[in-house]
Amino acid sequence: MFMIIKNYYRINFYSLTDYTFMDRKILMHVGPTMIDLDVLLSGVRYNTGFGSPEFIDAMKNSLNGLNKMMMAPDYHPFILPGSGSLAMESVTSLLKKDENVLVISSGVFGDRWKAIFNHYQIKCDLMRSEPGDIVSIDKIMEAVERKHYKMVTMTYVETSTGVRFPVKEVTSKIRKYVDIVVVDAVAAAGGEELNVQDWNIDVCLTASQKALASPPGAALMVLSDNAMSAISENSINGYYTDLGQWDKVMSAFLDGKSGYYTTLPVHIIFSLEESFKLIEKETMEARIKRHKTVAGAIAAGLDAMDTGILAKKEYRSNTVTGMMLNGIDMNAFLKGCLNDGIEMATGIIPEYAGKYVRIGHMGNINTNDAIATIAVIERELHKYGKKFTAGAGVSAVQEYLESL
Amino acid sequence: MFMIIKNYYRINFYSLTDYTFMDRKILMHVGPTMIDLDVLLSGVRYNTGFGSPEFIDAMKNSLNGLNKMMMAPDYHPFILPGSGSLAMESVTSLLKKDENVLVISSGVFGDRWKAIFNHYQIKCDLMRSEPGDIVSIDKIMEAVERKHYKMVTMTYVETSTGVRFPVKEVTSKIRKYVDIVVVDAVAAAGGEELNVQDWNIDVCLTASQKALASPPGAALMVLSDNAMSAISENSINGYYTDLGQWDKVMSAFLDGKSGYYTTLPVHIIFSLEESFKLIEKETMEARIKRHKTVAGAIAAGLDAMDTGILAKKEYRSNTVTGMMLNGIDMNAFLKGCLNDGIEMATGIIPEYAGKYVRIGHMGNINTNDAIATIAVIERELHKYGKKFTAGAGVSAVQEYLESL
Amino acid sequence: MFMIIKNYYRINFYSLTDYTFMDRKILMHVGPTMIDLDVLLSGVRYNTGFGSPEFIDAMKNSLNGLNKMMMAPDYHPFILPGSGSLAMESVTSLLKKDENVLVISSGVFGDRWKAIFNHYQIKCDLMRSEPGDIVSIDKIMEAVERKHYKMVTMTYVETSTGVRFPVKEVTSKIRKYVDIVVVDAVAAAGGEELNVQDWNIDVCLTASQKALASPPGAALMVLSDNAMSAISENSINGYYTDLGQWDKVMSAFLDGKSGYYTTLPVHIIFSLEESFKLIEKETMEARIKRHKTVAGAIAAGLDAMDTGILAKKEYRSNTVTGMMLNGIDMNAFLKGCLNDGIEMATGIIPEYAGKYVRIGHMGNINTNDAIATIAVIERELHKYGKKFTAGAGVSAVQEYLESL
Amino acid sequence: MFMIIKNYYRINFYSLTDYTFMDRKILMHVGPTMIDLDVLLSGVRYNTGFGSPEFIDAMKNSLNGLNKMMMAPDYHPFILPGSGSLAMESVTSLLKKDENVLVISSGVFGDRWKAIFNHYQIKCDLMRSEPGDIVSIDKIMEAVERKHYKMVTMTYVETSTGVRFPVKEVTSKIRKYVDIVVVDAVAAAGGEELNVQDWNIDVCLTASQKALASPPGAALMVLSDNAMSAISENSINGYYTDLGQWDKVMSAFLDGKSGYYTTLPVHIIFSLEESFKLIEKETMEARIKRHKTVAGAIAAGLDAMDTGILAKKEYRSNTVTGMMLNGIDMNAFLKGCLNDGIEMATGIIPEYAGKYVRIGHMGNINTNDAIATIAVIERELHKYGKKFTAGAGVSAVQEYLESL
Repeated sequence: MFMIIKNYYRINFYSLTDYTFMDRKILMHVGPTMIDLDVLLSGVRYNTGFGSPEFIDAMKNSLNGLNKMMMAPDYHPFILPGSGSLAMESVTSLLKKDENVLVISSGVFGDRWKAIFNHYQIKCDLMRSEPGDIVSIDKIMEAVERKHYKMVTMTYVETSTGVRFPVKEVTSKIRKYVDIVVVDAVAAAGGEELNVQDWNIDVCLTASQKALASPPGAALMVLSDNAMSAISENSINGYYTDLGQWDKVMSAFLDGKSGYYTTLPVHIIFSLEESFKLIEKETMEARIKRHKTVAGAIAAGLDAMDTGILAKKEYRSNTVTGMMLNGIDMNAFLKGCLNDGIEMATGIIPEYAGKYVRIGHMGNINTNDAIATIAVIERELHKYGKKFTAGAGVSAVQEYLESL
Repeated sequence: MFMIIKNYYRINFYSLTDYTFMDRKILMHVGPTMIDLDVLLSGVRYNTGFGSPEFIDAMKNSLNGLNKMMMAPDYHPFILPGSGSLAMESVTSLLKKDENVLVISSGVFGDRWKAIFNHYQIKCDLMRSEPGDIVSIDKIMEAVERKHYKMVTMTYVETSTGVRFPVKEVTSKIRKYVDIVVVDAVAAAGGEELNVQDWNIDVCLTASQKALASPPGAALMVLSDNAMSAISENSINGYYTDLGQWDKVMSAFLDGKSGYYTTLPVHIIFSLEESFKLIEKETMEARIKRHKTVAGAIAAGLDAMDTGILAKKEYRSNTVTGMMLNGIDMNAFLKGCLNDGIEMATGIIPEYAGKYVRIGHMGNINTNDAIATIAVIERELHKYGKKFTAGAGVSAVQEYLESL
Repeated sequence: MFMIIKNYYRINFYSLTDYTFMDRKILMHVGPTMIDLDVLLSGVRYNTGFGSPEFIDAMKNSLNGLNKMMMAPDYHPFILPGSGSLAMESVTSLLKKDENVLVISSGVFGDRWKAIFNHYQIKCDLMRSEPGDIVSIDKIMEAVERKHYKMVTMTYVETSTGVRFPVKEVTSKIRKYVDIVVVDAVAAAGGEELNVQDWNIDVCLTASQKALASPPGAALMVLSDNAMSAISENSINGYYTDLGQWDKVMSAFLDGKSGYYTTLPVHIIFSLEESFKLIEKETMEARIKRHKTVAGAIAAGLDAMDTGILAKKEYRSNTVTGMMLNGIDMNAFLKGCLNDGIEMATGIIPEYAGKYVRIGHMGNINTNDAIATIAVIERELHKYGKKFTAGAGVSAVQEYLESL
Repeated sequence: MFMIIKNYYRINFYSLTDYTFMDRKILMHVGPTMIDLDVLLSGVRYNTGFGSPEFIDAMKNSLNGLNKMMMAPDYHPFILPGSGSLAMESVTSLLKKDENVLVISSGVFGDRWKAIFNHYQIKCDLMRSEPGDIVSIDKIMEAVERKHYKMVTMTYVETSTGVRFPVKEVTSKIRKYVDIVVVDAVAAAGGEELNVQDWNIDVCLTASQKALASPPGAALMVLSDNAMSAISENSINGYYTDLGQWDKVMSAFLDGKSGYYTTLPVHIIFSLEESFKLIEKETMEARIKRHKTVAGAIAAGLDAMDTGILAKKEYRSNTVTGMMLNGIDMNAFLKGCLNDGIEMATGIIPEYAGKYVRIGHMGNINTNDAIATIAVIERELHKYGKKFTAGAGVSAVQEYLESL
């Protein structure tokens, strides 16, 4: 077990001299991801006030949509003005001084829980896997049996590695030992199977700019009654993260009334409302299948080119894939792909920083994006002298898609 | 001196059965305010990644624009993912346990400082004026002479009352007694005279959705070197509000590189970039004059109709006006005006809650908005049997405008 | 009777040095008029093909909406790629060589019929009133009794003068003498009472950018069966104006299929579809009332300032008002108003060119626009030394609105 | 030589039950084509008047941009409110009764010239090739030597077949025999080499929605002094197509003034202005190369799958490819591809109607679109039992792209 205490990343970004894909480049990023035009245009409102009937509707619909997407009809939904990390830090509203918390981490964003709790007078244990792997369930069981934890946090899909953690299985096993089970589903909700209420998760959180495919700016979470009951006068949270206060605001909107604690991101919420409409139209079942198909196509292409994928095969997610670079310079590779119209993300987990790239395939993505991505990667790898037939990657994608 | 500890508001909002101004209603609200279409459309980007060259430019330009608007060329600029309250709470990055803080408040948003500091182990004194008035400067001087304060906070324009506090004068007087002077310019920056560096303010903060006229979702602040030097390992801040970490992100963008701590509101920042462009095009001088003119026109109209204004005459701001209702039901009045195409804000200061409405006149407003607002208020007041000639209000606006 | 043969206008437009209303100026123009944001955003589609299911729907809905707005459920609707003049010229599809046509004109756009027919081997008589007046009905009856006309054209609202012609009354009187009654409702449909089928009009045409409040680019018309039966192999029309061919395209879309003759303005039609939705939501009855109210408010303001209005009182329209300038320079006046945020149109009828301005009040306009317009005009007139109390105009608007 | 007299097409369009690519489908259509978001958003203006300074600028910039794109700096530019067919018909402004015109046609849109001239008292000869081929240059020379033609029309890229006609060579050969050489560059300008002035073409026309990648609604053309001198009082044109009148409007805008004949498509022109800006930024040289690359990639893929291409190899264009269907049902095939996110156009030339599909690759297209298109076609063909290895098509695209 080791500790990560800083979470700041600085990227020495490439300059682009011959960049000609400004408009229709394909954003295969881990977030923000590509956004449906209707979602963006829903936020184009120049005179919508905070207490307008139309905003009240948008909040109400978004909160209801969140409950549906999370499959948590009886939970308390929250939409907060900030990023996913804000939702993470807001679980301090459920904690009192000196309580025990267990953080189960598969990488950078799992470690972030520890970095957050370090700011508070909390006893926090971190269990961290090797990159690409998960913490073994046996060790987790040992830990929860050994010590009583008020809260355990897990990361459903670890954005830094693309690893999917078996939250359903682990939650069911640890449930009786711990008070509050928190799942960070930032890179999962909207693209992975997720049945929060049935799986008995207490807190499940995400952000607007991932598989939800809205602009960044809203943190979203649902809390069980059990979680809500932990909010108290003695909770250690700050002002902005005070879920007890925010709960009143959310209740007001659910009631068709306006509420205020601090200013909500009005325009982002109109976009969110549209994202939830699109999810309803597509159905979550079809949406998860689409994510799985695209992930499978990308993996098939990479496997055929033998690049290696950071996540162990059994933990590959629907939403993020880490492609190993095998010695190729990361920035040069990303720049080459961007100049062919594919934008991907840097590989940031400290153990392999600069040694892989992350392909995000969340939200508004499709099989055409997958084939184009593999095609560009294939041509780029050829430039570096990789030995495989032209077309090997894209052919594998085609075979995969035809096999479905 | 009394204390306000909660900051949550719930508004029993009217239902609108005959609402026909959805599109071109005039939003005379205290925030979000009306937004230039170019500002909104700048944020319509469906595939812009976090590390894209175009986003790096947008951040760099926005940070530079912020320094210019604040007239603080040598300060450290910050753009954070959240509302103005986030910027407020982030000053905890400059504080250590048990330090003394003095909060000078003219109303709800001044009181909010106290509510924030209540979450931390800080010794916080609150001086609060009657609504419409300010805390007397003599009493402030007594306070700072009596006790050493690490930090003093002031609210430039108090959004709940429309009172403008003499921050320039007070800062110059208390400067030698206190370490860090913090000014909340949320409802002021972009509409009131503000020369942060010359006036020797240490921290000046605002939000995107006020006189800047961008969508809500970004908190903005500038810090002096003096303020920055107070950031330490022992600072009491949380994770999300950690200015020490955020500083590295901002420095990266100012350097033309991408940085990451938590996800920034990418689309809002493209809008902000455009807002700063428009400010540069208009010039701050012309912009402040425009705000003053509109505020003067509205005050002239209200005075002619003898409604009463919450703020004392000498403290009336350029950006917010509280119009007294003299017994008229607030929600009915607001609904009536909204159905004539003018959206205003509720009156929320506890002492006068429901007894006044707030007219916001910030950002993208003009004299045509002023006359239309007064015209609608005039006709609405007539419905309640107010005794003044039809046209008295609008005629006064005309006279005022012709007198300039 | 006299003849106008050219219809080209060149405007020596003002330069604007201190123009600060780019975004939220109020467009009181005769066309294009102000457009609802939802209407504009409906046209923001980057990948919508000509034969897409969504475009087929948009065309079908727009054609049906046109029939409804025109109150001509059994007529043949047409949407053509061009301006209103294209619809006018397309009535040549109903004419054969050497047939007689009577043009009844109240101004420039009435005269345009003559200018159009001059390009064809047609016998065209023009009856033209003085500006502000209409051709006397007695004289019209004399004309149709004296000679058999295949077609008579009338202009419902003459955009150059703001005169409303009594099309209902005249149509009912001349109906039995003439074969085809054509009404140019370009500046009327959507803002004036119009019951095409009940009034027994054969052809009624308009354009997208007037009271319909969509972007310019589509010409719209409905034809009775009687009108359709005049289309023949011997019709004198050109290719682009061939209503016989276009009819097949329109029928295809009404059938839920795609049709092609020349490329339709796809994006404009998505906007049109939304305009028709808004009309349905508002109801035509409420919409006409709104236009009447705004027109009344503007007239009340101008009358109070004693400017004179070009149209005789009994012929004042709901949609266009010609304000006399009484010696003030037109371009200077328009520039002055534009710099105060009100854009109006030049006065173009040859007899009074440069001696009046046209205020358009069509489509997406409201009482706030009316008061702001009168306020700006009032202040501008004062600059020219006009002798009336400050506030006289705006007070009159207020009195008028309160009297309703 | 045979004659086509009708140009109307009705498409029995498929219904889509499982259509999930509404937003990010790839539009490989022959027009409208895909549009850059900045181009679309430039047209989102709710209050821009016809005589506004900003519209005057947009028209001036667009006219200048048109001259540049056409490489015809000294020509008279025109932007008309309508489709490409309007520009075609407007050449009647250069013709008098009974003059001789020669139409050289490679398909439907060449034939359209004949259909247009049939509406006028003109002597029109049509030379028409077999689909996929061109009229032989020898026969053209015979024709122009045998009879004096006032005007000859050619189609640079025939949209119905994808055939590129050698306009440079033919113009240089026939130049001395004919008075006016007209080139329809609707499916070419912006994607094919085109040097109008140097090649000595008199009239070159296009439309906004093709390789220019703007919304449909504007017809664009440039005329030489020689062409302009043919405009006379005796020209046979109608009103809407009167280039003599339009010339005055265009001259006014080029002078920085507003002009009016009939209403211009204001919003489309703001989009056009942005399209021309993007063209300038990319450079025409790079743009033509990009079109050539994409066309080559698509042809490589189709050739590898042995589908057959309608155009003879030497006449394949940069912008349109006709893929033969070899017995597959066209509508079913198009629907299948659309459900995989690729929208293509029907095959319409009468000789092969329903036996091929047209792939448009104009404007805002790139190599990622090419590979995705071939991938979808490949999988779709496999469904019909086509015998070639999975990946053959996409591999060929990859090889082609790597060979450049």
